[in-house]
Amino acid sequence: MKQTFLLFIAYKGTAYHGFQVQKNSVTVCSVFQDALQAVLGQRVDVKGCSRTDAGVHALEFGISFAAETRLAPQRLVLALNAHLPADVRVLRGRCVPEGFHARYAAHAKTYCYRIRNSAIDSPFDADYCHKIAQPRLDVSAMNRAAALLVGRHDFTALCSAGSKMLESGDTVRTITDCHVQRSGDCVTISVTADGYLYNMVRILAGTLAQVGAGKMQPEQIPAILQSRDRANAGPTLPAKGLFLTKVDYGREFDD
Amino acid sequence: MKQTFLLFIAYKGTAYHGFQVQKNSVTVCSVFQDALQAVLGQRVDVKGCSRTDAGVHALEFGISFAAETRLAPQRLVLALNAHLPADVRVLRGRCVPEGFHARYAAHAKTYCYRIRNSAIDSPFDADYCHKIAQPRLDVSAMNRAAALLVGRHDFTALCSAGSKMLESGDTVRTITDCHVQRSGDCVTISVTADGYLYNMVRILAGTLAQVGAGKMQPEQIPAILQSRDRANAGPTLPAKGLFLTKVDYGREFDD
Repeated sequence: MKQTFLLFIAYKGTAYHGFQVQKNSVTVCSVFQDALQAVLGQRVDVKGCSRTDAGVHALEFGISFAAETRLAPQRLVLALNAHLPADVRVLRGRCVPEGFHARYAAHAKTYCYRIRNSAIDSPFDADYCHKIAQPRLDVSAMNRAAALLVGRHDFTALCSAGSKMLESGDTVRTITDCHVQRSGDCVTISVTADGYLYNMVRILAGTLAQVGAGKMQPEQIPAILQSRDRANAGPTLPAKGLFLTKVDYGREFDD
Repeated sequence: MKQTFLLFIAYKGTAYHGFQVQKNSVTVCSVFQDALQAVLGQRVDVKGCSRTDAGVHALEFGISFAAETRLAPQRLVLALNAHLPADVRVLRGRCVPEGFHARYAAHAKTYCYRIRNSAIDSPFDADYCHKIAQPRLDVSAMNRAAALLVGRHDFTALCSAGSKMLESGDTVRTITDCHVQRSGDCVTISVTADGYLYNMVRILAGTLAQVGAGKMQPEQIPAILQSRDRANAGPTLPAKGLFLTKVDYGREFDD
């Protein structure tokens, strides 16, 4: 019996070369396919909701695949967790219509970028945040800049130069939410959009960090976007602070 | 110039055989003494606020020592962090009167015990919580039991059998706060006391977990304490879920 599944997984990305299968590299997708093979006896083609970079983490990442099996999704979840490494866990799963694609079916995705804003590192958090020792980031200014990023814009200025995405000319995305919060020494940038250009969240985080440090003004954001010039935005912050936190497939597939 | 220092450190305990120096084992105290030696050129006698077990973590752990140096505490903090491994960090420091002892000067210490109450592990949290897959713990019952532990009691029933502390006969402690909170799949037990018997928090957590699972009733707590019999309490939960979170030295030494 052929069934199509949508599974949500979480992973610590530190040990992986991103999600997408690559030759000669261990990726989240490849260890997941290994686990599926152990459970189902088949090598299955797996679609992920995003091509996260090496070192990026996910609290909730959607994957879809079709497989010849009678296993119910709940059984499949438990069986896969018994075969996956501890840094990749399946959270839950469901059946979806044939042809469902974890990437194309996503209405929106939310990412968080975590900055430790302290001269003192945390012994617990080194793999999960980028350190900006000083100055103390101005979260209020960062939020004014974040508000100016919300909306339908051409985000070429926040895309790594040389990306294939730029060749396609499809560089307009809609950010529906972007805000910044401080909790003690941790500053978290949250962004929700219908899609992202290559490295867009890490460059967006680097730009807001420049604003927080007083090196850019919030009012510069519209001109940066209009310039469509990567050089005008802030630096690409390291992958380890980035988490995919939510994938929205719409009410129909909400559990 | 001889100065006495009180420093607060944080550490991930996973790689250490507890705080206290032991022969042929790497302990938090021994790596701290190595760092002090690198900075000051002296092997210094260091007192810790607690003898945490192997694998136990600390968000705030007080240590005191006297050393021949002109370094201001803030300078010493930065210098030590440059020499300590990433899983041990000095948070802050101050000078204290000669003879100050990090353990005897503590008025109270607060510990947290973290339980992951889910069939699915977290890829991020495995070193920092104990898993109880099921049943869903009854936090309200755990809080009723916790309230019955508050006060001045003989806690022999919550002390590992064979401990030297039992020989001394000094088994009365005062718990000033004990409560349980759930945040999603994480159940956290918090306890504040003027002192603790050997393994007391891990046995207390095991006892409250039994209550949460419906295997003990909150009303049994007074009889368990009165019995002074370790066998009547719950199991000793693993070290990795335990965090020392706060050491209270009184207002005088509050920064």
